[in-house]
Amino acid sequence: MIGLGFSSKVMAEAMGTYFLVFAGCSAVVVNKIYGSVTFPGVCVVWGLIIMVMVYSVGHISGAHLNPAVTITFAIFRHFPYKQVPLYILGQMLGSILASGTLYLMFDVDEDAYFGTVPVGTKGQSLMMEFITSFMLMFVISGVATDNRSIGELAGIAIGMTILLNVFIAGPVSGGSMNPARSIGPALIMQKYTGLWIYVVGPLLGTIVGGFAYNLIRLTDKPLREITKSGSFLGNIAKK
Amino acid sequence: MIGLGFSSKVMAEAMGTYFLVFAGCSAVVVNKIYGSVTFPGVCVVWGLIIMVMVYSVGHISGAHLNPAVTITFAIFRHFPYKQVPLYILGQMLGSILASGTLYLMFDVDEDAYFGTVPVGTKGQSLMMEFITSFMLMFVISGVATDNRSIGELAGIAIGMTILLNVFIAGPVSGGSMNPARSIGPALIMQKYTGLWIYVVGPLLGTIVGGFAYNLIRLTDKPLREITKSGSFLGNIAKK
Amino acid sequence: MIGLGFSSKVMAEAMGTYFLVFAGCSAVVVNKIYGSVTFPGVCVVWGLIIMVMVYSVGHISGAHLNPAVTITFAIFRHFPYKQVPLYILGQMLGSILASGTLYLMFDVDEDAYFGTVPVGTKGQSLMMEFITSFMLMFVISGVATDNRSIGELAGIAIGMTILLNVFIAGPVSGGSMNPARSIGPALIMQKYTGLWIYVVGPLLGTIVGGFAYNLIRLTDKPLREITKSGSFLGNIAKK
Amino acid sequence: MIGLGFSSKVMAEAMGTYFLVFAGCSAVVVNKIYGSVTFPGVCVVWGLIIMVMVYSVGHISGAHLNPAVTITFAIFRHFPYKQVPLYILGQMLGSILASGTLYLMFDVDEDAYFGTVPVGTKGQSLMMEFITSFMLMFVISGVATDNRSIGELAGIAIGMTILLNVFIAGPVSGGSMNPARSIGPALIMQKYTGLWIYVVGPLLGTIVGGFAYNLIRLTDKPLREITKSGSFLGNIAKK
Repeated sequence: MIGLGFSSKVMAEAMGTYFLVFAGCSAVVVNKIYGSVTFPGVCVVWGLIIMVMVYSVGHISGAHLNPAVTITFAIFRHFPYKQVPLYILGQMLGSILASGTLYLMFDVDEDAYFGTVPVGTKGQSLMMEFITSFMLMFVISGVATDNRSIGELAGIAIGMTILLNVFIAGPVSGGSMNPARSIGPALIMQKYTGLWIYVVGPLLGTIVGGFAYNLIRLTDKPLREITKSGSFLGNIAKK
Repeated sequence: MIGLGFSSKVMAEAMGTYFLVFAGCSAVVVNKIYGSVTFPGVCVVWGLIIMVMVYSVGHISGAHLNPAVTITFAIFRHFPYKQVPLYILGQMLGSILASGTLYLMFDVDEDAYFGTVPVGTKGQSLMMEFITSFMLMFVISGVATDNRSIGELAGIAIGMTILLNVFIAGPVSGGSMNPARSIGPALIMQKYTGLWIYVVGPLLGTIVGGFAYNLIRLTDKPLREITKSGSFLGNIAKK
Repeated sequence: MIGLGFSSKVMAEAMGTYFLVFAGCSAVVVNKIYGSVTFPGVCVVWGLIIMVMVYSVGHISGAHLNPAVTITFAIFRHFPYKQVPLYILGQMLGSILASGTLYLMFDVDEDAYFGTVPVGTKGQSLMMEFITSFMLMFVISGVATDNRSIGELAGIAIGMTILLNVFIAGPVSGGSMNPARSIGPALIMQKYTGLWIYVVGPLLGTIVGGFAYNLIRLTDKPLREITKSGSFLGNIAKK
Repeated sequence: MIGLGFSSKVMAEAMGTYFLVFAGCSAVVVNKIYGSVTFPGVCVVWGLIIMVMVYSVGHISGAHLNPAVTITFAIFRHFPYKQVPLYILGQMLGSILASGTLYLMFDVDEDAYFGTVPVGTKGQSLMMEFITSFMLMFVISGVATDNRSIGELAGIAIGMTILLNVFIAGPVSGGSMNPARSIGPALIMQKYTGLWIYVVGPLLGTIVGGFAYNLIRLTDKPLREITKSGSFLGNIAKK
């Protein structure tokens, strides 16, 4: 039933999420220990690791790397429901293993915690996780599920959305947008303060984001009438 | 008269401008409250949000996200005049809603004001808004309306123009280039100091920019004679 | 003799160099007055303005924007000799006008000088200008004159070469790589210290760079035998 | 036996590695002398120089620029074994010449050493070199050897992987991932502390990385069944 192809996809999600969480959280830990990465550097690392993982495993598993994205794809029929549990399992496994690697490599104390905890109020953090996840799913829907859109540049667009979202949400909520990214470090470090925010916020955000894009996706023309050239303003220039 | 397709476009402009103003102004507010974003980080956020929105809604509405750009497109016949008012309405709505969201989320005092006010003299600010908007429209014309040019990379080119322009205009005028971006926060925070600069500067700048590009667009060859390959120096290499 | 097409090209070189010098030198001046741009920000502005100008006028004039590049193209037969003088005239005009604009807009004193002067010794500065211009022309030759190479991404590759070169040469020589970029501000501000370095260094560098690339361009296979796919390792994967 | 084509490739590897080591190590030296580059700037230079060299010589030699990558390609049959020694010779030569150039240009003392030495413990440094090289080879395999993947964007993906890896490994191990990058400066400066880490770590990392990608590359469908469009989620959207 579950063929070699599907197990490759699950492994790709696990490996991709491992590298995502290892790189992003390394930047946090190394910055807390050595100070030289700087907060903008941490944002750059989170954005670029998503970008390179989309290009590395996107053609294998779709590079969700995020349970909230997987569930939202299933809800909007871009992904089969029955594959959801194993995708999430792979993502969780990758995140836990990466967190464990970091725990073993560095002397991670309370200060160097690499999970996400609310810095602002809980309301602010929930709102920030909601809006940034909303924006993330809106962009993913625009560049990855709409066949009038760009193809090859999707990884750049999605990675740069993460990069800018970590800039604005990082100082407030930690800028997770991804339950797997938050649960892995929490389990390893046994620190669950406000963890629900990083499950509820991203999930609500991605669902609303997918819905919002569907609202504007509906046009009165068949999709194929508009060219796939990806040219900005292409549909206007041709009139 | 106004079909489902057009309402999708207006909604896309509203949503795109919402995310643009929310992300860019969040970076300003969060930097003023927490300090960690840094000014270069604010520039990066403005540039990237434009880039990702061009890729997310560019194929739906053209991703103007800026009344000055919409008006200039209409003047140079790249956009129908009669659609201008609703596009501007969508852009203004997005900006006002984003400014309201920020006002509700954060304790925004005088210091954390996220609109644009002249820092240098009014003359310097007007000049900066004029030249940066000129450059912006020159680039948009080059990459998005000239069919000899690149297609897919337009979002990168336009986003990076915003990024660099905020670097040079930010400390002087605030780096708006966009009446909607300036009017939204001004209305919500009831602060109108020098607001005319951010209407007159961008509008004059984009019109002159569109005109300047048209000057060099005119060649003595039919457009189709030159290949669409987008290859840098392609027209020279082929001689 | 000189048709509308050629005058468009010269105008494109003038406008492109105007924006190049205005943006890059603005970043220098604004950073010296307000301090917020930071040196990495200055590097980013120089790199991005080159990138966006390649995408804006590359399909019109080839986007040389640099007399050393124009002369080197002529020497290696990628550009007609008789068009060299007017191209250089356009580039010089653009640089002088941009420098004049900055001089009128800001209170530019000795400290905020936006031209290039040797910071290290003259030998170090000459060497830095030589090597960075060498690298620049090597990259331009690889991405813009070799038809086995990438096409659309040339602007990114060339812009990012400038960005990284300003990082390493900026603190030593100012990171010019371009006689027009150095002569414009020198004329406007009447400051000629070490100006010869920014003519000799770039010119020698670009000529040697073009020569070095030609050494490795020569293969024992006809160029067309190798695919134009631009795929990294494409020539290996196909064996 | 060794034709003009192969000697071009070896020269391309030597020149590419020369520019790689010159630019990256210049950033380190100039930052130590002048301070203005900053650590994030050093990371940006390493990432961008890899990116532009992939675009400049990738179509000639494949742009390995790294003995660990060349050996791993040979092991996984993407490169002929008998060409390995001369490729490595070219890479070593480039690195040594670049290190010599820097030594002659700058007054390089102990503090401004531009090689790599463990900052954290040797175990941490070895682990960091191993994991970052693992990630690097995983990305290279995904974007450059899998024909379902992107083509033109490989240089961006690989360069940005280096950029983010230097951010996380730089403060711990120096972030080499490349024996040639570490051996060149060590030979010129006669400083061999922990040099074995930068041979063993990268080599083990790239081999395991190539192996890990091969695990998920194997699918139960013929490769050609899946489109080459490079579209993110393309394989899902088509179901």
